[in-house]
Amino acid sequence: MEDKPYVIGLDLGGTNSVFGIVDAEANVIASTTIRTAGQDDINVYIENCCKALAPLIEKVGGIRNIKGMGIGAPNGNFYTGNIELAPNLPWKGIVPLSKLFSERLGIPVVVTNDANAAAIGEMTYGVAKGMKNFIMLTLGTGVGSGVVVNGELVYGSDGFAGELGHVIVDTSPEARLCGCGRRGCLEAYCSATGVARTAREFLSKRADDSELRRIPLDEITSKDVSIAAEHGDRLACDIYAFTGHLLGRSCANFTTFCSPEAYVFFGGLTKAGHLLMDPIKEAYDANVLNIYKGKAKLLISQLDDAKAAVLGAAALAWKI
Amino acid sequence: MEDKPYVIGLDLGGTNSVFGIVDAEANVIASTTIRTAGQDDINVYIENCCKALAPLIEKVGGIRNIKGMGIGAPNGNFYTGNIELAPNLPWKGIVPLSKLFSERLGIPVVVTNDANAAAIGEMTYGVAKGMKNFIMLTLGTGVGSGVVVNGELVYGSDGFAGELGHVIVDTSPEARLCGCGRRGCLEAYCSATGVARTAREFLSKRADDSELRRIPLDEITSKDVSIAAEHGDRLACDIYAFTGHLLGRSCANFTTFCSPEAYVFFGGLTKAGHLLMDPIKEAYDANVLNIYKGKAKLLISQLDDAKAAVLGAAALAWKI
Repeated sequence: MEDKPYVIGLDLGGTNSVFGIVDAEANVIASTTIRTAGQDDINVYIENCCKALAPLIEKVGGIRNIKGMGIGAPNGNFYTGNIELAPNLPWKGIVPLSKLFSERLGIPVVVTNDANAAAIGEMTYGVAKGMKNFIMLTLGTGVGSGVVVNGELVYGSDGFAGELGHVIVDTSPEARLCGCGRRGCLEAYCSATGVARTAREFLSKRADDSELRRIPLDEITSKDVSIAAEHGDRLACDIYAFTGHLLGRSCANFTTFCSPEAYVFFGGLTKAGHLLMDPIKEAYDANVLNIYKGKAKLLISQLDDAKAAVLGAAALAWKI
Repeated sequence: MEDKPYVIGLDLGGTNSVFGIVDAEANVIASTTIRTAGQDDINVYIENCCKALAPLIEKVGGIRNIKGMGIGAPNGNFYTGNIELAPNLPWKGIVPLSKLFSERLGIPVVVTNDANAAAIGEMTYGVAKGMKNFIMLTLGTGVGSGVVVNGELVYGSDGFAGELGHVIVDTSPEARLCGCGRRGCLEAYCSATGVARTAREFLSKRADDSELRRIPLDEITSKDVSIAAEHGDRLACDIYAFTGHLLGRSCANFTTFCSPEAYVFFGGLTKAGHLLMDPIKEAYDANVLNIYKGKAKLLISQLDDAKAAVLGAAALAWKI
């Protein structure tokens, strides 16, 4: 019997659920999207997913040609297959996601969190191909991470390892409050929302002109900062310098754990290119312990944003 | 042919080199110690080691009964077998330690850093037996660490992973200067020397009475603090509370990496027992991210200090 030639990847986000049927060469053969938001009943959600998937599965010759399904989801637990206490998803408590999909589709289903899926995607198809030790940092609405050691994703004792967005990077009492309820987390500074907060802080504290002043203070997004920085706006560039500096300094600390071959940055903020990467590199070199100096590569993911999460989830399914 | 029944363990410290011949049940059959300090010529040092080892090797029936040798040494690199740029050893630059011993003794020799050897010892013979994910923290003159993920020690891309003593835990500009040249490292606070520094700071800043005031300020050691704390001295107890709080808070951050099943604390400072462990636990629980709360065990090593390092090094040799 031939090996089954396809897998299903699901990038399960708070707003949308994006499905792709993927072959072994990382081609997305078919894809579809349904809304996640508002689907408060998990059983109805699963039903809707399977309905949306049905024509895609038919297109590749039926479920017998599909090896399995990989899901990247916030607070997805690789060990249990559950989503546990995800603050941005409609379902509260513990949801046995892999069990529900597996029973409905009749194929094996694995779950991991979205940043871990991105790391697996990067290792399978991206700039981390062939690397045995690297750290993936996803700079989106929050800061996610996937840590790869000895060629394997680090899940830890409970399946929840790799939450570097919640390392405390500012220990001062006036450090920013994070969504997790603690102060000074990396995510409170170096996510898209963190960048918008930095913009509001800088605009309030500083007196110099900036095109960002044309936008109402509480409406500024990281996208606005990015556009202004592209125009050479000084204040906007300083926001990236601040963000990159903090990221570089934090990565210097992370290196003491696992001395990775590379850091791979992914997500909206990396669109700023050298405006973000130059201060990251500068702060990393200035802060890393002597024995590690000049060793780790600092890379931007080259995977297409729209596809990367689905490909990462799909890559997980190939390992079933 | 029978399996060879013994290994040699070497705990190579800045002052002394302690050798043990160890059997598969962790019995130290024979041991000897020579000075490391002052032995500036590495070849003379190796010669002296082998001379000291000769009668021990005879005692177990000759080198044919010895499977290999494991060495725990500061800045020991598992991948290369070298000691690289170790500030507290007499040899500068890069020393091909495993090659030198292996050529001289005719058996395979592996090297790792002293804290990694301790972690392997703990995993093989100690409280971490059977654990797949834990972090070892050695609180001695410095702070060393060994990180175990998926049942394997994390060496990273260059063999130098696991330097958690050099994670920056105080980001303020007035944070303590560390021996590594940077500010705010865990080691500058939570090592024996760090505790002595805390004692000097507290005694200078505070006005309350303490038996530590009988000792000249620049002669106070962590041992003095320990004795005073045992007597119930308030200031000495506060020093442990401060140290433990910082350790607990730091471990809470470390957990985001690898969500370990346990932290194992080893070394002189742990003699303080609950005076150190209570604030560690309190600060850990108060600072760890919600999803990790109540999961990791916080343990003190039960291995005999004098033997643990040699046993750890020996355990490494069994894996050759």
